[in-house]
Parts: sequence; C-alpha cells; structure tokens
Amino acid sequence: MTQLSGERRILGIDPGTNILGYSIVQQCGKSVKLLTMDVLVLGTKEEMNTKMKQLFDKVTQIIDTYHPDMLAIEAPFFGKNVQSMLKLGRAQGLCIAAAFSRSIPFVEYSPRKIKQSITGNGAASKEQVANMLRRIFHFDDIPEHLDATDALAVALCHCYQNDIPQEVEKTKRSVGKKTSWAAFINQNPDRLK
Amino acid sequence: MTQLSGERRILGIDPGTNILGYSIVQQCGKSVKLLTMDVLVLGTKEEMNTKMKQLFDKVTQIIDTYHPDMLAIEAPFFGKNVQSMLKLGRAQGLCIAAAFSRSIPFVEYSPRKIKQSITGNGAASKEQVANMLRRIFHFDDIPEHLDATDALAVALCHCYQNDIPQEVEKTKRSVGKKTSWAAFINQNPDRLK
Repeated sequence: MTQLSGERRILGIDPGTNILGYSIVQQCGKSVKLLTMDVLVLGTKEEMNTKMKQLFDKVTQIIDTYHPDMLAIEAPFFGKNVQSMLKLGRAQGLCIAAAFSRSIPFVEYSPRKIKQSITGNGAASKEQVANMLRRIFHFDDIPEHLDATDALAVALCHCYQNDIPQEVEKTKRSVGKKTSWAAFINQNPDRLK
Repeated sequence: MTQLSGERRILGIDPGTNILGYSIVQQCGKSVKLLTMDVLVLGTKEEMNTKMKQLFDKVTQIIDTYHPDMLAIEAPFFGKNVQSMLKLGRAQGLCIAAAFSRSIPFVEYSPRKIKQSITGNGAASKEQVANMLRRIFHFDDIPEHLDATDALAVALCHCYQNDIPQEVEKTKRSVGKKTSWAAFINQNPDRLK
C-alpha cells in the first residue's frame, strides 16, 4: 500500500494479554479514514511465553503491512492487582518495542482522555465509545470484542490531539469542561469524513 | 565475535526502569566464562518514552554485539505497588521483544530460584549472591550496582538448569532442600572454571 504525501497513518492499540485490540486509521488533513480494526485473541490456556511471541509478531506484522507513522496506545487503568499490571505492562512493552523496532514513535493516552476525546465524557462506557465510533466511521455492526473499538478510539484520539484548531483550544480553556469533542463534532460535522 | 561449535551464550538481564543490569556468559560443556557484565543507568528524570527507547536500543545492541542464544530474565518480585509493576512489566516486555526481534527465545526465573541456584539459599541477599559470583568468576571488585551481578546470576542460573547431571537431580529429589547448589559446587569445584 502506498501513502500519498500529507497522509499519515496511526496504529491504535488496546494492549491486553488475552485479547489485543488494534486499528489503523489514515488521516489526510481533516479527513480520517478507517483502514482496519480487529482483535488478536491470544486465548487463556497458552503459555505466557507463546502468547508474548504471538503478540509481538502480530504487531510487527500489522506495522509491516500498513506502515503507520505513529503508535497510539491505551494506558492501562490503575487499580488492578500487581500480577495483572505486570502482564499488562509486558503487553505494552512488547507493542511499543515492535514500534521501536521499525523506528516508529509512540504516544500514550489514558482511558479517560480517550473517552473524553471521542464522546465528550471521560467516564463513558465502552459501548458508548463504540456507538460514537460507529456513527463517525459508519461501520455496520459493533465488533464482538470492544477491544477493537477501544483501539480505534485511541487512534482517533491521537488524530484529534494534532488536529485541534487554535480557536477550539482557546474555547476549551475558557469554558473548561463544558466544551467537549462531541459538541465540537456536532458543531463541525465536516471535520470528520 | 565468532562462536565455536558447542558453545552457547546466555544473555542475563535484571530488568528495571531506572537501572538495567545485563551480563553475557559463554558456556562450553561444563565451563562457564563471563564475557561482559554491566548496567545501563536510565536515570530518573528522563521521560518514560525516552527511557523505554534507550532500554530497547541497548538490549538490541548487546544482542547484535554478542549474539546470545538465549535470554534469561529475572522475574519481578511481586508485592510492589501496581504502578511499579506496570513499569517493570514494560521493561521486561521491551527486553523480551528485543530478543524476539532477533529470534532469540527467552526463559524467566524467579528471584528465589536464582538465589537458590547460585548460593544454595533462596533467601540470600544481593550481596551474598554477588560474593558467590565473585568467587566463581574471580572478578576483582563487586560492581557498584548489584543489578549487574543480579543479571550475571540469572544467566548462570540458566546454565545450571541445563547442566544438571542426572545423579544430582536424583540426589536433589531424594534429600529435598538439604542439597543446594552451593554444596554441589563445593563438592565439585571443577564444574566451574
């Protein structure tokens, strides 16, 4: 696949040790297009060693297929137990290393930041995020695993961060939490195609 | 550097987000030789993103310099807080991914297993482990950062696992905890050169 000049591709990842959500979006100016969105189901019975290899190989393969310019990753939500956090950290490290191995930088967003960017509500449910994404990208069915839409959410969140018009930044600062991305999207439907 | 047939090299890593310990040992039959042992000090002020890149690049560079056949890694000790575990998991994931990117398998040992293998006491202190390693490998001074000797310990621990004579295995099973590697080394000083 060849990228036109001015286009950039974002690989969004929702890292997990049992299910890894991933998505590639292509941004060209104010337009964002969904190229792929899926999950890698690693299962629960495989040995950790095998799962880690599968995860690394898959992310590397996605990168080699779509040539993204940036990896945007969802930061784990703190509050789980230490063993879960270790596993999530490993999954994150493997994804980030796959990006590093292809000289791709990464950026990380908290779940709250992602939800806020997509729905205007930092406490939105996964279903609300998925529904908003379906409206934006016009896909027919919400995927079985919401890890896929979570990955799309973080990729789109990154597009928004770098495509914030200066006047909106100012407005956000002046009115605080009352200005949301959902409101901005409603007011500027042409910004997403 | 060229490896002779029958030789194998083990990369031992004690992963950390501020200090990464690493070591390369070369095993040929019953002989184990120390090739390198050092630390990468990542500092505490750098951004996490920069530190992760430095860590991945360093481990990749060590692999490309010494061409190890296996990565042996120290598993984090559970009991730290969730944020620490996430960071440690990431550091582990980055090291393991560096190995995967060069098609090198990895194996993981618990701190207790490593200490037991080196000193005969699973609850030995870092200093005791370092002192035993100094006796074995005849290096002059114990490094300033014991992360370096911890990395050597996990590499040597892996050599021991694959070099256990059948009769010792049987003895270990029959007498349980009373047989230690320290005792075995004392009884068989020729096993380490």
